[in-house]
Amino acid sequence: MRRECSVASAMAPRPLTLDPDRLLPSEPSLRERARAIYREITDLPIVSPHGHVPASLLADDRRLDDPAALLITPDHYVTRLIHSQGVPLEDLGVPRRDGREVESDPRAIWRLLCRHWNAFRATPSRFWLEWELHELFGVRTRPSPDTADEIYDRIEQTLASPELRPRALYRRFNLEVLATTDSPLSNLSDHLALRDDPAWDGRVIPTFRPDSLVDVASADWAGSVAALGAMTGTDTTHFSGYLEALRSRRAAFADAGATATDHGPRRADTTRLETAEAATIYGRALAGKLDVGDSAAFGAHMLDEFARMSCDDGLVMQLHPGVHRNHDAGTATAFGPDVGADIPAPTDYTNALQPLLNRYGSHPNFTLVVFTTDETTFSRELAPLAGYYPAVRLGAPWWFLDAPDALRRFREATTDTAGFANTAGFVDDTRAYCSIPARHDVARRIDSGYLARLAAEGRLDEDEVLDTAVDLAYRLAKATFRL
Amino acid sequence: MRRECSVASAMAPRPLTLDPDRLLPSEPSLRERARAIYREITDLPIVSPHGHVPASLLADDRRLDDPAALLITPDHYVTRLIHSQGVPLEDLGVPRRDGREVESDPRAIWRLLCRHWNAFRATPSRFWLEWELHELFGVRTRPSPDTADEIYDRIEQTLASPELRPRALYRRFNLEVLATTDSPLSNLSDHLALRDDPAWDGRVIPTFRPDSLVDVASADWAGSVAALGAMTGTDTTHFSGYLEALRSRRAAFADAGATATDHGPRRADTTRLETAEAATIYGRALAGKLDVGDSAAFGAHMLDEFARMSCDDGLVMQLHPGVHRNHDAGTATAFGPDVGADIPAPTDYTNALQPLLNRYGSHPNFTLVVFTTDETTFSRELAPLAGYYPAVRLGAPWWFLDAPDALRRFREATTDTAGFANTAGFVDDTRAYCSIPARHDVARRIDSGYLARLAAEGRLDEDEVLDTAVDLAYRLAKATFRL
Amino acid sequence: MRRECSVASAMAPRPLTLDPDRLLPSEPSLRERARAIYREITDLPIVSPHGHVPASLLADDRRLDDPAALLITPDHYVTRLIHSQGVPLEDLGVPRRDGREVESDPRAIWRLLCRHWNAFRATPSRFWLEWELHELFGVRTRPSPDTADEIYDRIEQTLASPELRPRALYRRFNLEVLATTDSPLSNLSDHLALRDDPAWDGRVIPTFRPDSLVDVASADWAGSVAALGAMTGTDTTHFSGYLEALRSRRAAFADAGATATDHGPRRADTTRLETAEAATIYGRALAGKLDVGDSAAFGAHMLDEFARMSCDDGLVMQLHPGVHRNHDAGTATAFGPDVGADIPAPTDYTNALQPLLNRYGSHPNFTLVVFTTDETTFSRELAPLAGYYPAVRLGAPWWFLDAPDALRRFREATTDTAGFANTAGFVDDTRAYCSIPARHDVARRIDSGYLARLAAEGRLDEDEVLDTAVDLAYRLAKATFRL
Repeated sequence: MRRECSVASAMAPRPLTLDPDRLLPSEPSLRERARAIYREITDLPIVSPHGHVPASLLADDRRLDDPAALLITPDHYVTRLIHSQGVPLEDLGVPRRDGREVESDPRAIWRLLCRHWNAFRATPSRFWLEWELHELFGVRTRPSPDTADEIYDRIEQTLASPELRPRALYRRFNLEVLATTDSPLSNLSDHLALRDDPAWDGRVIPTFRPDSLVDVASADWAGSVAALGAMTGTDTTHFSGYLEALRSRRAAFADAGATATDHGPRRADTTRLETAEAATIYGRALAGKLDVGDSAAFGAHMLDEFARMSCDDGLVMQLHPGVHRNHDAGTATAFGPDVGADIPAPTDYTNALQPLLNRYGSHPNFTLVVFTTDETTFSRELAPLAGYYPAVRLGAPWWFLDAPDALRRFREATTDTAGFANTAGFVDDTRAYCSIPARHDVARRIDSGYLARLAAEGRLDEDEVLDTAVDLAYRLAKATFRL
Repeated sequence: MRRECSVASAMAPRPLTLDPDRLLPSEPSLRERARAIYREITDLPIVSPHGHVPASLLADDRRLDDPAALLITPDHYVTRLIHSQGVPLEDLGVPRRDGREVESDPRAIWRLLCRHWNAFRATPSRFWLEWELHELFGVRTRPSPDTADEIYDRIEQTLASPELRPRALYRRFNLEVLATTDSPLSNLSDHLALRDDPAWDGRVIPTFRPDSLVDVASADWAGSVAALGAMTGTDTTHFSGYLEALRSRRAAFADAGATATDHGPRRADTTRLETAEAATIYGRALAGKLDVGDSAAFGAHMLDEFARMSCDDGLVMQLHPGVHRNHDAGTATAFGPDVGADIPAPTDYTNALQPLLNRYGSHPNFTLVVFTTDETTFSRELAPLAGYYPAVRLGAPWWFLDAPDALRRFREATTDTAGFANTAGFVDDTRAYCSIPARHDVARRIDSGYLARLAAEGRLDEDEVLDTAVDLAYRLAKATFRL
Repeated sequence: MRRECSVASAMAPRPLTLDPDRLLPSEPSLRERARAIYREITDLPIVSPHGHVPASLLADDRRLDDPAALLITPDHYVTRLIHSQGVPLEDLGVPRRDGREVESDPRAIWRLLCRHWNAFRATPSRFWLEWELHELFGVRTRPSPDTADEIYDRIEQTLASPELRPRALYRRFNLEVLATTDSPLSNLSDHLALRDDPAWDGRVIPTFRPDSLVDVASADWAGSVAALGAMTGTDTTHFSGYLEALRSRRAAFADAGATATDHGPRRADTTRLETAEAATIYGRALAGKLDVGDSAAFGAHMLDEFARMSCDDGLVMQLHPGVHRNHDAGTATAFGPDVGADIPAPTDYTNALQPLLNRYGSHPNFTLVVFTTDETTFSRELAPLAGYYPAVRLGAPWWFLDAPDALRRFREATTDTAGFANTAGFVDDTRAYCSIPARHDVARRIDSGYLARLAAEGRLDEDEVLDTAVDLAYRLAKATFRL
């Protein structure tokens, strides 16, 4: 029974409550200050400029999925932590690429989450889930093996209500804009349908994410490039046609409302090649004859090309390097990507971004939002870069760092050198639609506590604190992402 | 007089006191919460699964050494800091390898500690020493040049008491199990003697640490391997015999109570070689004809072999890479290893551990406890690895990080991503037997303060906080190390 | 209007105030303790062992410059942050190397600072500027577009007063000693004039900074070396003459009051070459025929030579590697160095310093003060090195890390392993003469808060806290820098 510590024991059901002062500093006078700040921003609309909710969710506006499909199986934050307790991903319903059977009973999957609820203690996933259970589904009992079925039934019952439909939630969540993440090969039909739907007055916009079209080493690349050519009526058998096709899709994205692009390379290297050299690599890639180093060199060159395109078309460029994706080969083979087996690694920005920033870092039409999963770069590299180059904005703490204490460390490590004006506002980066308000709420609470401390320590005046709180919760995201 | 700041000045003796609330948060309401948590765990037995106390201490149960030999000379935490103030290691009684005379008067050595007491201000060594002085030896005066002799005499007098014998202290410390660290070449006679001693009802278990048998570049290696062969009746002139001999010693260790192994390589690389290639390096090593890179490649391969053996025999594998040992060549030549001249360096885990974790990271019988002296890896690498791979558990902050603020930073940086259930409990890692309770007490106090904050911030409920406190202080170490 | 968040809006003028408790912990009992500590050290003289104020300022004792030239244009902390908001350096009056016109109206430059005052929220530059405005110039209105002219006039008017002359400020600032930073080619005339001025009873001492004479790859190097030869009457066409000339200048600096040298290489590598090899590189450099790697190898060797010279002449060696200088090539070409475009990068100390410390780290006449802009090295490398090697002292958090929260993190990350006695005291490292008291005041306040916490947590006794506070604010800098 080596896992005994982490398995919820059978006992009398415990209540599930939400402390109205949660995440605010505990010291009474600081809490009072933080509350006052939080009150000013808690009702501000949510601007969500970077996430992974599919546009079809709002276009179709169907009843949400069952509790497992809604809250567990597609959320790699949740599956990874249950997996760490020795639960196979099959048991969580994660589909296998070979089509072999996996758990298909949502209630059985839900029970696994409840059984391992203790493993989530003090994690952000638990914080978000608690909010969803309490606020959306009216659950008032803490998950445990004994309460799993009762909670499951309660969620199922609530999901049937029209108030839980995606568009109703959009209004309830006070969303002002919701950005999705999309392949250049997407025809954006859901975005266009929403735009043309007279019954819809929200704002769901695509984000141009071309990683799959840049990764020349991937097996799917040549097919994707051919599809890009077909889609745009461009000859992508040579490099200049490929660039032209990408520019064409960027324009289509902008027409559909996009204001940003998104790039997640392994490293941040931005060394530009001679155009002829890039074209030669492109040709080798199409011929299936890549040399060692071609893939990395081409990826670095393309970051430069995308930055140049941004200077031209004004799309904000988002960059988040540094994650070793698919770290567990067995899991990657069996389940594919994005199931929780991605692990960060040290990431260089100072040297890697120099070529790009030397070319475009002071361009008046360029904004580069930089994210990291390596918090050592906060004070050492990212804040100094953002505190000098006009184009650079610091992305919010992201992925493994989107958590209360990490959000606080981000402010403490970057404000000295970058100030607030060089930060980009919060992004929730989530696939879990129902968790969006909880995620923004965490950031607003932590920033309220941080600003309360600044006021208490005489570092900002009261009016500045309130003004800054609105910047961090609302204005900076709108301004940075040109929304 | 450039060192004047750090030398205790002559003045009226100051009292030595222990604040009952020491290390608890100072804010009154948080302190009250932390006290309540601490009260629940302060009397739990101590589980010490990783340390360096010799088993002979308890097997022999002799009077403890003089104050210098007990508290100063063998403790590199203490000698290094006095050395940093310009005191030669000879003056602290550290034996020279060439046999040249060093200070042999324990009272003179003791006076040096008292003279440099100020250099220890706010360090964990001082915290541990104060506890020992106050609780074990009844000292009520702060060490200083003026009080050195009086304190020395007091310790000497107390050490004569039967209550200060090692076995009496074992009971007084409320130890439930104490693991030692042992060479595979150890015959474990002291462990076996203890096991068979009807007058002894404690639990002292060995830990299998094969580093000296893996370091093919060391001058002693060939002799050690020959001794291993002789000890096990195995032909260690070829690689498969060497592996068989190691397995045989692991079985003997398990018979003597061991539940774990321990590995301290320079780097965490775990790249497996083809078996034939490993065997070839082994042959070159025996022939004294190593190629460049052989030593590192063989060490990496052996980590894979040891992980495989752990899957078979269930011994928990502990890994603590990243320390540049014997950084000061002159000191290494004169005094040998483990005298305080080891310095950490940046350590890669994400890439280095991938081969091993891809093979064994989800094996149901495998547990890998990973330690670090590079705290940048807490949030970036170790918590993500432990929060995904079922086999990985985070070792406690260790060595340079076994200190109040670092223990707190560990929780703040890892809990978000790994939770508590993927941590391994506290280890004291000490050669200083008398400091064991103080070391565990520091961890319990810091965790109480951390959990108090979580409760005050609405991140955990009261019952969960108390339950987690027992996990961290007691259950997780037992479960992780299969005790 | 993407920058709208960071631009001060027009509204009723706000007061400018200084909270007497600023930067002290906000929790009431901790604040009370911190206040008591701060009261004991706030009136201690300022020891400034490392900075960039020109000696001519005090030698000439002229009226200080206009507000822009005094507080903005030469201070790269200030220009970089305004530049990050999209303001060209030309508009801030930073002179171009090609002589093309830049803004020359100090009032226009001042208005830019006031317009972007919000970008400075919670930054240390704002903290220092507020102190200067409030305490030196009597400003009681917060800078904003509407108040810019009024404040400008107020500063101008105040600057006319004899109380604002540099020497008067030296006394008012309670400076005990002020070190400048000087090229070996400086004739130190201002220092000598001050020394011989009967009307001057302060202490302004030079610091020997030979970087420009070591950088063999720089275009100016050969000329500098020739000038060095002419100045010292030494034949610098060969390596031994070059070393002799450097020793000669060190002696002249020591005669003029210098107690320290200063070295800012890109990396901390200290690998010594064979003397003949170093001489060969020196020859190639003079011949303009450097090989790849020559420059780095020569720089590393020279750190060893300088350490050896320090053992001989007792000048304290300061080392601050790790900054990628002139990161923005366009800015470097247009404006030259030191205009805010320097970005830190990861820095190795453990391996890089080993050669030098193995040779001189225990030498009784050697002190090496190590600075960093990479705070990951605080607990991992620098504190362990300083906690072992007698020669090593930890320099204060510096440059990007000279800020309230970073100062606190420095103590929390280094005290465990290095204690206080191995730290070097605060350095302000500033070009902004008027900001010196504010910078030292920040450090004193943060240290008071940190020590208050140690006392409240039972980690230090009351008398030790007060004694340590004086060490940190005054004694350690004097002792370390042999003042």
